[in-house]
Order: sequence, then C-alpha cells, then structure tokens
Amino acid sequence: MLTLYTYFRSSAAYRVRIALNLKGIEYHSQFVHLLRHGGEQRQPAYLKLNPQGLVPALVEGETVMTQSLAIIEYLDELYPHPPVLPADLKGRAYVRSLAQLVACDIHPLNNLRVRQYLIDQWGHSEAQWQEWYQQWIQEGFSALETHLATHPATGLCCYGHSPTMADICLVPQVYNARRFDCDLSPYPRLNDIYRHCTALEHFRQASPEY
Amino acid sequence: MLTLYTYFRSSAAYRVRIALNLKGIEYHSQFVHLLRHGGEQRQPAYLKLNPQGLVPALVEGETVMTQSLAIIEYLDELYPHPPVLPADLKGRAYVRSLAQLVACDIHPLNNLRVRQYLIDQWGHSEAQWQEWYQQWIQEGFSALETHLATHPATGLCCYGHSPTMADICLVPQVYNARRFDCDLSPYPRLNDIYRHCTALEHFRQASPEY
Repeated sequence: MLTLYTYFRSSAAYRVRIALNLKGIEYHSQFVHLLRHGGEQRQPAYLKLNPQGLVPALVEGETVMTQSLAIIEYLDELYPHPPVLPADLKGRAYVRSLAQLVACDIHPLNNLRVRQYLIDQWGHSEAQWQEWYQQWIQEGFSALETHLATHPATGLCCYGHSPTMADICLVPQVYNARRFDCDLSPYPRLNDIYRHCTALEHFRQASPEY
Repeated sequence: MLTLYTYFRSSAAYRVRIALNLKGIEYHSQFVHLLRHGGEQRQPAYLKLNPQGLVPALVEGETVMTQSLAIIEYLDELYPHPPVLPADLKGRAYVRSLAQLVACDIHPLNNLRVRQYLIDQWGHSEAQWQEWYQQWIQEGFSALETHLATHPATGLCCYGHSPTMADICLVPQVYNARRFDCDLSPYPRLNDIYRHCTALEHFRQASPEY
C-alpha cells in the first residue's frame, strides 16, 4: 500500500491526490501539518523522508519519492490507464509545458516558505504579499490562457476532454488563486476548465475540503 | 532543423543546450538578449512564440515548445539514445525529482524576473538580493547533497556514471550559484559532479562561455 504524506491545502500534494484518484490507486494518507509545531514538515522525522522539508512525499515499501510531477510521471508509467499524458510526442511536450508553467513558474514563488520569508524575515505586509502573489498568478495565467485560446487541442480539459497532467496542475493553482482573492475574470478558459474538472468525482475527492 | 531561442546565461536554455549536445542533435541558435531593449523576451515578436516571455523555446517546423524540462523529455522520447533518464521506473522518478528540485524549487525563485521585481519594484538592495539568492540555493543544495550522499546510485554523475536530466539541471544551477559567489563548500558531492560534468565536451560546448 502506498503512503502519501500530504497537507490538505498544499497545491503539490493536491496534484498527487488527483493523479492517484484518476488512476484508481488506493493509498494511505499521512497528514503533515505545515503550520503546527513550527511546521511538521521541518521536523527531523519528516526530513528523514524528504530532506527538502516539503510535501508531498510518496512512500512505497523502502522507496520514498518526492516532487509532485516526478511522482505523477511515475504513477503514469506504472499504471498507464487512464493516461495523464497524450500518446503523441508533441502533445506530451505541450501538456508537460503547461504543467511546468504552473509547477515551475507560478507555484514555487507563491508557496508557504516564500510567504514566510517575505513576511517574517523581511517584514513585508500582507498587502505586499497579495501584490507579489497576484503578480505571478497574472503573468502565468495570462500565458496559460493564451496557450489554451490558440491551441487546437483545447477542449473541456486543457488537452482534449480527459484530464491530463496539465489539469492536475491547473486545478490546485486556480483553487489557490481563488483563496487569495485573485481576479480571474481575464481567464475564461481557465475558469471553464476549472469548473469542468472540479465537478469530476476524482478531482472532488482530492480537494482540500473533501 | 530545430531552432533554439536561447540566452547564454539563462539556466533553462543552458539545460536544453546540454541535452541537444548529449543527443548529438544539430540545431540553429536564435539569440534573445534578456537585458537589451527592455528584454527582447518581452517584445511582441518573441511573445508570439512564447507568451510567457521566457527562454528557451524550441521550434520545429510549425511547433513551438516551451519549458526546458518538457523540451528535454521530448528530445529523450524522440531520440532515445543516449538516454537522459534511467530505464527503471523508480530510478526515473528519482532522477526527475532531482531535476525538479532545481527547476521548480531553486531556479524560479532566483531568476531575472524575480530579481527585477525585488530590486526595481520593491527597492531591495543588491545585498538583500544576495541574501535571498543564497537562501534558496542553501535550502535546495543541502537537500540535493543529502540525496546524493545517501542514494546508492550516486556515481560520477547524479545517477551512475552517465549524465541524466539531474546533471543537466544541476550544472547550470551550480554555474549560476558560483557567479553569485555562493559558498559551495558544504556540498562536496555537488562540486565533484559539477567538475566531472563540466569537463565533458557536450557540457562544455553548451556553457555560457563557449
């Protein structure tokens, strides 16, 4: 049985929960509270599993896997059906690029450790955090919206009508942006895809509220 | 013929140059100067190719590919030899996680657009930028060093003795950290791997100085 070290609001853990559900893989959840005890992810017990002190980590027997996209690629290679990447190589490159646009160029700038650094270490205000957060959402979502508006494969999901790694990354990021009161009206396609995916049972059961 | 939109010092473009060289793929370089004319990557002509306004972009016929790791996975699927990912699934997950540790959790925090935001927008000093830069290098490199010190597959390269996607990401990041005068003495394995890889012809010909 797989064990997922997870936190309900972590975008990266949320991605892996969606992927596990889409693949129909049973797993055990081990909760790591990112705000309790100075961050349970920074305690020695967890650092032994993941020296980065970040969630998620996926444990299978003696193997610990980290980094959400690496975990999702692993799950897709081990359990190919249903696939979360298209079959054709250029489609795969495109879907991975959308996923990485979120996972490399939006999320890492806006996650908890950066928030704590800017506010606790440098004394920035909540309003400045909000400005910072929205800056990277706006840059990233504008580019995503342009991709989705112009790519012929855009459907109910980012690529066709079935969820891929792109939707697995998009949904937690939109969820997060809504929580921080970002104006998402300039991104109609992102909103449509978010609405479509969050209505799907596998996404719903992975959500922070579930 | 492939065309790579590149900038000599961009870590992400440097990664793709290494991968193209390792695979022995001929390509044409199109230079995008990140500091000239307010950033050539933000001019309309380039934004048509990549709405994110970031390098690299790889163009093959009518197809534009963005995001360095997506491009490298594409090259690895199209030209499987020599591979830049191991054959076994857990090895692949591990190598991808090392690559993503750099590409998601170090590089995006320390790249040019963030520097410009912190200094030009918020008025932080060069010394504060240095502190910020070193914070994410230190967190990321400490975790990487721990992985490499404990994983049985560590060799002359991050995984065995041949370069993988992990080395392709590590080398440009170490290059960058040296440029910003980071103390890298706590990371002997990273230094050894950096020295080994940068002596290889395919890496050398991809370097900013070449």
